[in-house]
Amino acid sequence: MLPKINTERFQDDFDALAQIGSTGDGGVNRPALSQAGIEARRWWIARAAEAGLETRIDGAGNHSAILRSPDPGARTLLLGSHTDSVPSGGRFDGALGVIAALEVLRTVRDADISLPVHLEAIDFTDEEGTHVGLIGSAALAGQLTAKSLENPRGGRALWEASLARAGLAEVGILSARRDPKSLAGYLELHIEQGPRLFNSGIDIGVVSGIVGIKSYRVEYRGEANHAGTTPMDARRDASLGASAFVLAARDLVMKNFPGCVVNVGQMAFKPGAFNIIPGYAELSLEFRAPEVERLAQLEAALVHLAERTGAQYGLVCAIEPAGMCAPAPMSERAQRAIIAAAESLGLSYATLPSGAGHDAMMLAPLTNAGMTFVSSRGGISHSPLEFTEWRDCVNGANVLLRAALNMAVERY
Amino acid sequence: MLPKINTERFQDDFDALAQIGSTGDGGVNRPALSQAGIEARRWWIARAAEAGLETRIDGAGNHSAILRSPDPGARTLLLGSHTDSVPSGGRFDGALGVIAALEVLRTVRDADISLPVHLEAIDFTDEEGTHVGLIGSAALAGQLTAKSLENPRGGRALWEASLARAGLAEVGILSARRDPKSLAGYLELHIEQGPRLFNSGIDIGVVSGIVGIKSYRVEYRGEANHAGTTPMDARRDASLGASAFVLAARDLVMKNFPGCVVNVGQMAFKPGAFNIIPGYAELSLEFRAPEVERLAQLEAALVHLAERTGAQYGLVCAIEPAGMCAPAPMSERAQRAIIAAAESLGLSYATLPSGAGHDAMMLAPLTNAGMTFVSSRGGISHSPLEFTEWRDCVNGANVLLRAALNMAVERY
Repeated sequence: MLPKINTERFQDDFDALAQIGSTGDGGVNRPALSQAGIEARRWWIARAAEAGLETRIDGAGNHSAILRSPDPGARTLLLGSHTDSVPSGGRFDGALGVIAALEVLRTVRDADISLPVHLEAIDFTDEEGTHVGLIGSAALAGQLTAKSLENPRGGRALWEASLARAGLAEVGILSARRDPKSLAGYLELHIEQGPRLFNSGIDIGVVSGIVGIKSYRVEYRGEANHAGTTPMDARRDASLGASAFVLAARDLVMKNFPGCVVNVGQMAFKPGAFNIIPGYAELSLEFRAPEVERLAQLEAALVHLAERTGAQYGLVCAIEPAGMCAPAPMSERAQRAIIAAAESLGLSYATLPSGAGHDAMMLAPLTNAGMTFVSSRGGISHSPLEFTEWRDCVNGANVLLRAALNMAVERY
Repeated sequence: MLPKINTERFQDDFDALAQIGSTGDGGVNRPALSQAGIEARRWWIARAAEAGLETRIDGAGNHSAILRSPDPGARTLLLGSHTDSVPSGGRFDGALGVIAALEVLRTVRDADISLPVHLEAIDFTDEEGTHVGLIGSAALAGQLTAKSLENPRGGRALWEASLARAGLAEVGILSARRDPKSLAGYLELHIEQGPRLFNSGIDIGVVSGIVGIKSYRVEYRGEANHAGTTPMDARRDASLGASAFVLAARDLVMKNFPGCVVNVGQMAFKPGAFNIIPGYAELSLEFRAPEVERLAQLEAALVHLAERTGAQYGLVCAIEPAGMCAPAPMSERAQRAIIAAAESLGLSYATLPSGAGHDAMMLAPLTNAGMTFVSSRGGISHSPLEFTEWRDCVNGANVLLRAALNMAVERY
């Protein structure tokens, strides 16, 4: 009979971690490399050591617990996520995957199962982007450069103080790269952070890929003018192009790009007075698609739409790229391993893309990466209201365990 | 034969004033009570004194030149405008009317015409709102209170420094009220600041009234959410209500409210990130109509539209008044006097509302107020590009002269 995790030990650990940086309302405040963030990782690595597992902290601050294969030349199957949170975030996002990974190692060890791979539970540094985002997994994948650390989101002073607090240095972070040949794969358990599993009542999400993201700054230029003396039909009002684009972009995606999303999260008019017709409007555009080709089609359609909407109101449109993250398809092998795990446990499952970014997107180009989702109530996350039924957490951890066993015994 | 102004003297004065605070590109920078603003008024009052006119500065800093009637108990016919400008404004806005008023007094005096009214050319303080807006004319009309001076737009420090520079005090400003029974009327020559005369080639605008202005802050509340994981059809995106309102408000006014205008000059989304669906959108709404009743109808229609647009996207709409200025119809008598003046000079004219605010709106409830417009090239104003053909300036000044004579000889 295949093993299952120890649900009591799993719950004790989950609850203990949720106390570190607790905000008292069900949430946690554990920004990466903050006092609470560091405390959480110290507690976790101590729990791993108590369980008799080998522990390791790499140059990027990634914390690992390792269960060695009898074969010293074996590859490593990584199981991980992150313990850092957004400011005043929830207690499930990231934490669930890290606690489950440790529990999987203990369960395999307790069951005396010898595997042809090393199992490594890993807590990645700064997934949430307090400083840069995905630092730990990007460093491991060799995707970080000195340049990517130059302009941390919270500023250099916070970054340098945080590094000092954690005993880290930039040079160490850049040296944390692993040889892809040393890896057997990567599996991550995470809450969905969207409403699809919750709304459908399905137990397990098998992630097909992590969506690609592109962002742009879109500007419309018309003519600022007196809002009282300029007749309505003589205006070149930049607000009209911007507003029409917001509505048309949504229509375009809903009609022609099912499964994709678009967002205009920022908007500003200039000069910005009650009594002056806006001669200038600027907006932020972000859109996501699960496949490279679909992302490119969506991009072309939105750029065209932005320009056409401007022309319609006599405006000049300028559109400038502001960022890009390629879609990361999850490995077929990992998806099969997760599906077989769900089936062996009698759980319902559905294949779906992840609309949010995760450490798995950094691992995907390197090794066989896969993700398992469990339901988030109402799709809410990054909030103390974030909630996943305990039953779903246990199911997710058991799927992680069995998917890891499935992956471990495959040949490379 | 009826007199005409001295065009050479008029032009010399106009050009001399345009040098004070000149920005070197045809524009002037003469904010109210700035160094250049004060210098302009000193120069103007000196020109009046040189012409042998009586001069006066009231508690609100309004500068006047007076040509007395032989009847010491006569009423006063005011002719005025303002010498202050917006920052980096044009040389015609306000200045034209003040120079023309002085020229009218000199012309009447030179022609040895005795009138049954005193003629007073007046340069009102802070028409443009560097501090509060329409301070001089509002003070004269008894419309200012200590409260209206509490929150000057440029802050109290600038206001207090400006008062000290000009030798003024708030108590003096509040004491500048005139008895309406002392007034025979008010006439103002101004550039149109809109394109109607320019586009139609008509010489003279006879202002029927100054539009009423209402402003609101409109808020839409939805739900901030993850821009990647929240499906398009599960969003309560505040940007949609705000954008739809911008477009629908314009359509409403263009279809159902000819002669009225609407403007959304400010827009902001919150939380305001590329990757977060805006849960909150705020916009500024301003609309204008020439009559009280029409303004009320437009207000009701726009408030209803704001709410309906919100409901359409599942948003809560809150709409809060942010300001109001009642329509100011110009006196029939003043309009007849201006029309007769234009006809006597063989000039074409059209009756039109003023979409912009002017000192005349403060005088209208008090006395027979009237305004004459001349063409602005392309409707441009509040810019160094502001331009009025010299021919039109002269025509305007002659209309002001003859309208003043027409008003002066009427019985009260």
